[in-house]
Amino acid sequence: MTQKLRIGKIATLLAMLEEQERASYSSLLQDAQCCEGKVGSMDMQKVISAVETAVKRSGLIQDGIYRETHALYHAILEGLEGITRGQWAIGEMMRTVGLRFAVVRGEPYVDSGEGEWIAVAFYGTIGAPIKGLEHETVGLGVNHI
Amino acid sequence: MTQKLRIGKIATLLAMLEEQERASYSSLLQDAQCCEGKVGSMDMQKVISAVETAVKRSGLIQDGIYRETHALYHAILEGLEGITRGQWAIGEMMRTVGLRFAVVRGEPYVDSGEGEWIAVAFYGTIGAPIKGLEHETVGLGVNHI
Amino acid sequence: MTQKLRIGKIATLLAMLEEQERASYSSLLQDAQCCEGKVGSMDMQKVISAVETAVKRSGLIQDGIYRETHALYHAILEGLEGITRGQWAIGEMMRTVGLRFAVVRGEPYVDSGEGEWIAVAFYGTIGAPIKGLEHETVGLGVNHI
Amino acid sequence: MTQKLRIGKIATLLAMLEEQERASYSSLLQDAQCCEGKVGSMDMQKVISAVETAVKRSGLIQDGIYRETHALYHAILEGLEGITRGQWAIGEMMRTVGLRFAVVRGEPYVDSGEGEWIAVAFYGTIGAPIKGLEHETVGLGVNHI
Amino acid sequence: MTQKLRIGKIATLLAMLEEQERASYSSLLQDAQCCEGKVGSMDMQKVISAVETAVKRSGLIQDGIYRETHALYHAILEGLEGITRGQWAIGEMMRTVGLRFAVVRGEPYVDSGEGEWIAVAFYGTIGAPIKGLEHETVGLGVNHI
Amino acid sequence: MTQKLRIGKIATLLAMLEEQERASYSSLLQDAQCCEGKVGSMDMQKVISAVETAVKRSGLIQDGIYRETHALYHAILEGLEGITRGQWAIGEMMRTVGLRFAVVRGEPYVDSGEGEWIAVAFYGTIGAPIKGLEHETVGLGVNHI
Ligand SMILES: [Mg+2]
Ligand SMILES: [Mg+2]
Ligand SMILES: [Mg+2]
Ligand SMILES: [Mg+2]
Ligand SMILES: [Mg+2]
Ligand SMILES: [Mg+2]
Repeated sequence: MTQKLRIGKIATLLAMLEEQERASYSSLLQDAQCCEGKVGSMDMQKVISAVETAVKRSGLIQDGIYRETHALYHAILEGLEGITRGQWAIGEMMRTVGLRFAVVRGEPYVDSGEGEWIAVAFYGTIGAPIKGLEHETVGLGVNHI
Repeated sequence: MTQKLRIGKIATLLAMLEEQERASYSSLLQDAQCCEGKVGSMDMQKVISAVETAVKRSGLIQDGIYRETHALYHAILEGLEGITRGQWAIGEMMRTVGLRFAVVRGEPYVDSGEGEWIAVAFYGTIGAPIKGLEHETVGLGVNHI
Repeated sequence: MTQKLRIGKIATLLAMLEEQERASYSSLLQDAQCCEGKVGSMDMQKVISAVETAVKRSGLIQDGIYRETHALYHAILEGLEGITRGQWAIGEMMRTVGLRFAVVRGEPYVDSGEGEWIAVAFYGTIGAPIKGLEHETVGLGVNHI
Repeated sequence: MTQKLRIGKIATLLAMLEEQERASYSSLLQDAQCCEGKVGSMDMQKVISAVETAVKRSGLIQDGIYRETHALYHAILEGLEGITRGQWAIGEMMRTVGLRFAVVRGEPYVDSGEGEWIAVAFYGTIGAPIKGLEHETVGLGVNHI
Repeated sequence: MTQKLRIGKIATLLAMLEEQERASYSSLLQDAQCCEGKVGSMDMQKVISAVETAVKRSGLIQDGIYRETHALYHAILEGLEGITRGQWAIGEMMRTVGLRFAVVRGEPYVDSGEGEWIAVAFYGTIGAPIKGLEHETVGLGVNHI
Repeated sequence: MTQKLRIGKIATLLAMLEEQERASYSSLLQDAQCCEGKVGSMDMQKVISAVETAVKRSGLIQDGIYRETHALYHAILEGLEGITRGQWAIGEMMRTVGLRFAVVRGEPYVDSGEGEWIAVAFYGTIGAPIKGLEHETVGLGVNHI
């Protein structure tokens, strides 16, 4: 069960690195399907919807299958634990997020019986609803799909 | 209050990238003091101690000052929220972690009045206490110091 | 302090079983006062209100007494921990619930000094706000009253 | 995506009902693979291990496949949220559990593309580490497998 | 349901004030039964036991009645939420507490139908397991009994 | 690192004591800057804003400096853990708060290298959104600034 593809690392790098910073990682990024996006909000619903919509539009998961939606949803929730560090509330607690996200689907394990997994990474800022009063935040969720 | 130094991004990259993968990021890593380490355990105390010991040994924080220990401690706790995604328990919940960590101290903001901040990043695996039954996990905590 | 009346089990069975499935449990259901209801919502306030209103209307607790409202409220909150498994948020996290609930009040313990207790059980589905993209969920809260 | 098999309801009934109470539910219990067990402990590791061991021994999941262990593990954790109602700690918080558990694997949805899911249910008592100073508790976790 | 006796305020004052500081509050402290104690530990079990033992020894609750033990236990847990601010773990997270506690039992409400309630207050320090690397912490739990 | 100024105790006393009850504590209250206020709401945003606004208006923290806002914000969040005892939600969970708060800034430790810290205390009631159906609640957060 050694890992051959670090989908969590790839997703986190995609969420963190600017276009020009990725050059040297092109080799890391092959063999995995991925999709990316951005969202800024005080409303957690909008953050979750932004990821779900981007993923469905990109065809990364099958839209009509609950199984895949369920796997993605729990990976998103786990990623948001890292972002909020404690409780999922943002606007309710007077804070806002500005996030880039990346979702990677692939086979991380050498043993093909392990099948496909999904990784959802977020990187950006969290802070007061005033430009600049914010610091960095990262989150990653990983699930079997 | 624009950020000039992404201490969270630097810490996360240091925790995630192998030595040979860092070549192209050398420019990103200047202007910040940092320290790195590794820890594998089912015992959260050992994970926290590993970071605290590495940080104090490296001189990144002043050992005799509670203020700095307090800043570091809360940054570690926030990083561990991302690692555990929900509750800090590892061994108690029959899971183990194998982590690399990096701690970065620096001035992230253009305005020098914002002073120094500290970022604690973890990257590695979490899973059953059986080699290979594990997936990736990431956590980042950021605090003023 | 042996239990003679399993108010939690009765409440959970009432929340889970259809009318026609209850025939063989009629003996289980005597000796306890109960009330039942249904609620579907993305709004936790509506779920809590639905239970509180049903309970007050049925006369299961005394409306004017805070003591009984307090006992019921904490039993509801504990039941909702099982439903949400982690954090009480539903709509905020882009999920919705469709629940049946049952509240049972009675004396569970042989020793009459233990007095009355209240059990609040929920059973139904939780999932995306799209019909069918959901799975089952159960929750039970028990409190002295 | 209508549900044809309520694996969560079956698991909860199996965990709650005594042998003699199950007669009238024999029809409910077909079409699903299941395994059952008991555990009493102040140590959450023992509770988790008891379920994992029973499941693996019964052949309900494939032992060598992390994917299935991962699905089971998260279902157990979600079930334990209902049991502990707030935080997973038992012995650390001076409380003990006496639980029966049931794990059901099957295809809950009409659409065969939804595949197999797993439900882990717990029913029993939680309370002070003194016989009788305890009340009922229920938990259910459901996951795709 | 106006409050005539602030059992939470009394408990918190008792936990916070030194003997010599209480002189001017003697009037506040009448009409309520109370008990006090101290505990320092990295082990939450010891903190909970210290309160339970002090309360039972003082006769503030009836030892043989689960109902009263249950009311006290949940009040303790709620008080410990304030102390730990997030998760109940202390030693596991490399922190220790030094606490004074006070438990007050009485009738807070004008309406005698509201009966007796119990308040558990903690005041002291929380911090690293090194003398002085600590800051203040307060917690209060209130329950009907 | 012995404490010379108990900013947490002072803040809690200020939040709890009526004007006429403070006479005998005047000596306790010197050497610290403080600000006080009141807020009643079902909306956590309003509670947080009330504190932040009062603090900024009083000049207790520097408005344009994120560092100080960040220290205050986390102290508020920690204080609200004690108030909500479990999860920060109030209105969403059908409960409301009526709180007095006090914020104290000062140097708690003998060693001047420890610098300034901030304490945020809340005292009041939490309960159903019906006058009188409520009990007392306390919370304290402490942070370096
Ligand atoms: Mg996992
Ligand atoms: Mg922060
Ligand atoms: Mg209980
Ligand atoms: Mg789910
Ligand atoms: Mg309460
Ligand atoms: Mg602290």
